[in-house]
Amino acid sequence: MSELAGHVVALAGGVGGAKLADGLAKLFGEQLTVIVNTGDDFTHLGLHISPDLDTVMYTHAGIANPQTGWGIAGETWNFLGQVERLGGPAWFRLGDRDLATHVLRSKRLAAGETHTAVTAALCRALGVTTTLLPMSDDPVRTIIRTDDGELPFQDYFVRLGCAVPVRAIRYDGAAAARLNPALGTLGGELSAIIVCPSNPYLSVDPILAVPGMRAWLRAQGCPIVAVSPIVGGAAIKGPATKIMTELGAPASAVGIARHYAGLVDGLVIDGIDAALAPQITAEGMAVKVAPTVMSNSGDRVALARTVLAFAGELAGAIVR
Amino acid sequence: MSELAGHVVALAGGVGGAKLADGLAKLFGEQLTVIVNTGDDFTHLGLHISPDLDTVMYTHAGIANPQTGWGIAGETWNFLGQVERLGGPAWFRLGDRDLATHVLRSKRLAAGETHTAVTAALCRALGVTTTLLPMSDDPVRTIIRTDDGELPFQDYFVRLGCAVPVRAIRYDGAAAARLNPALGTLGGELSAIIVCPSNPYLSVDPILAVPGMRAWLRAQGCPIVAVSPIVGGAAIKGPATKIMTELGAPASAVGIARHYAGLVDGLVIDGIDAALAPQITAEGMAVKVAPTVMSNSGDRVALARTVLAFAGELAGAIVR
Repeated sequence: MSELAGHVVALAGGVGGAKLADGLAKLFGEQLTVIVNTGDDFTHLGLHISPDLDTVMYTHAGIANPQTGWGIAGETWNFLGQVERLGGPAWFRLGDRDLATHVLRSKRLAAGETHTAVTAALCRALGVTTTLLPMSDDPVRTIIRTDDGELPFQDYFVRLGCAVPVRAIRYDGAAAARLNPALGTLGGELSAIIVCPSNPYLSVDPILAVPGMRAWLRAQGCPIVAVSPIVGGAAIKGPATKIMTELGAPASAVGIARHYAGLVDGLVIDGIDAALAPQITAEGMAVKVAPTVMSNSGDRVALARTVLAFAGELAGAIVR
Repeated sequence: MSELAGHVVALAGGVGGAKLADGLAKLFGEQLTVIVNTGDDFTHLGLHISPDLDTVMYTHAGIANPQTGWGIAGETWNFLGQVERLGGPAWFRLGDRDLATHVLRSKRLAAGETHTAVTAALCRALGVTTTLLPMSDDPVRTIIRTDDGELPFQDYFVRLGCAVPVRAIRYDGAAAARLNPALGTLGGELSAIIVCPSNPYLSVDPILAVPGMRAWLRAQGCPIVAVSPIVGGAAIKGPATKIMTELGAPASAVGIARHYAGLVDGLVIDGIDAALAPQITAEGMAVKVAPTVMSNSGDRVALARTVLAFAGELAGAIVR
C-alpha cells in the first residue's frame, strides 16, 4: 500500500527515470501513470524506435537489461551482425528480441494507430499494468545544436557518444504537438506528480515542451516533487553534468533546483549533497535529503516511498 | 569452364531452381544471370519479403539452410519468439539473421530504389557474383483461387501449408508489370536459357506472365532448355504434383512438357522417367535423360553441365 491514496503521475525518460517509475509501480500498480519522453524517438532502418518508452516498458516488465540500461536482458545480436555483413549501419544496437517491439510498433503506427494505443497494446502483452503514456501522440524530436550544426538526438547520443559540446537544444515539432489526450481522463484525481531522476534537458524538458503540459501539471493541485539526477556533482548515468556545464548551469543539485524552479514544490537530493539544501530552498522549493542512488529493486521502492512521503508532507501547503 | 561460350540466363523460383542456378553459377559466375520469381513477394509485419529472391541469393552466397530450403543456416529465432510474446503473428518464420535482409530491403525500396538495385546491393554484400534479377521491378502477386475464395500466395503456401485445393492461379499486377530493363542489356549474347526445376505454376509462370517475357526469351535465338521438377511422378519438394492434379494436368514429366510446349526446345528428365521420352518428344521438344536429383553441390554442377551440353547439342538446330 502507498502512503498516499489516489492516482500518481510520474514523468520519466530513460534509465534513472525508469527505475524510480518501477519503484512507484511496485506501490501503485494500475494507479500509476508514467508520462514518457518521446523526444528521442527516431526512424532507423525504416523502423520507428522509441528508446525511452522501451526502457520504461522493459523495466516495468522486468525484462530490462540491467547492464546496459537499455534493451532486453539476455539479448542476442544476430540480426545486427547480419545487417553489418550486408553493409548496413550497426551504430544503433538493435537486439534480436528488442527488434520485435520496433517492428510491431512500426507496423501499427503505419496502419494509423496512435502511439498511445500501440504502447498500451505492447504493455498489455508484456504484463505491464501501469499506464505508460507517450507525452504526445504527435512527433517531437530533440535536436542538438553543436559547433558543426544541428544533430538529431540519437546521432549525438549514440552515434557520437555525446562527445561534441552542446550549444543549445530544441524540441522540433513541440509547438504543434498536442498533449496526450489520455491525460484529460486523470484530471482532479491525482495525489502526487513525480519528476523522476532523468536528464532534465534530454528527458524531462521535451515532455515539458508540449504546449499545455506545464499548465496541466500545475493545475492538478497536487504536490509536484522531483528527484535530482545529479548526486555529488555527477550524473548516475548519462551526460547530464556535461551538458549542464556546456550550457552554463551549475552541474549540481542546485542546478537541478534552478532548472525546475516554478514547476516543482519540492526536490529530493542525496545525502552527499545535504549541504546544498539551503541553496535549493532559496530557489523556492522544499527539500528532502535521502538516499537517491538505486542499485537494486529495494532501493527503487525505498526511494518511491521517500518521494511519496515527501509529497504527502507538502500536500497541505500547496497553494497555486 | 563451361561447355558453352557467352552468357547464360536461368529462370528460377525457390529451392530446386536455386540449386541448379547455383550449379550454373559455379560454371559461369559473372556470366550467369538468374531471372527470379517475385510473384511470392509479400508484405509481412510491414516488411517487404521476397522469398524466392532470398532463397536464390542465400544459396549462391553459400549461407542457405539446407534443411529447410529457405532462410539462413545456423539461424536463431529470438525475434520471432518475442513477436509471439507480444501477440504478433508467427506463422511466417523470420529468423534473426534473415530479418536483416528484409529490413534493409524494405528500407531501400521505401526510399525509392528499384528491386533490381536493392538485390544487386545485397548480392554484392554477400559476395554473390552472379546477377540475380527480379523478373520485374513492378509488383506481381501470385493469387490462389480456392473453393473459399482467393488467397494471397503466402497464406496458401505457408500459413495453410498448401492444404486447400487450388482451382486457379492468377498473377495480380502482371499485365501492368514491365520486363526488368536489365534484360535489355543481355540481348543477342546468350548461349543458353535454362528453365530451372522450379514449380511451373508457382515459380516459373509468374515470370512468364510478365508481358514481353516469353517473346524476349524466344527472341534470343539460343536454345531454351527446361529441367523437369517432377521425378517419378513426384515433386522433389513442394506442392507441384498436388497442384497439377488439382488443375487437371498429368502429374509427371509429360505434364511439364505440355506446360512448357511452345517455349522450350528441350526438356531434361530423370532416368526414372526414361520411358516417358516418346510422349515428351511428341510435345515438340527434344528430350535428355539424366540424373536430375541434386543432393549435394557436386550434383548441382553435374546437372548444370548436363543441361548446358544438351543446350549445346540443340544450338545448331534452333529455328525460330
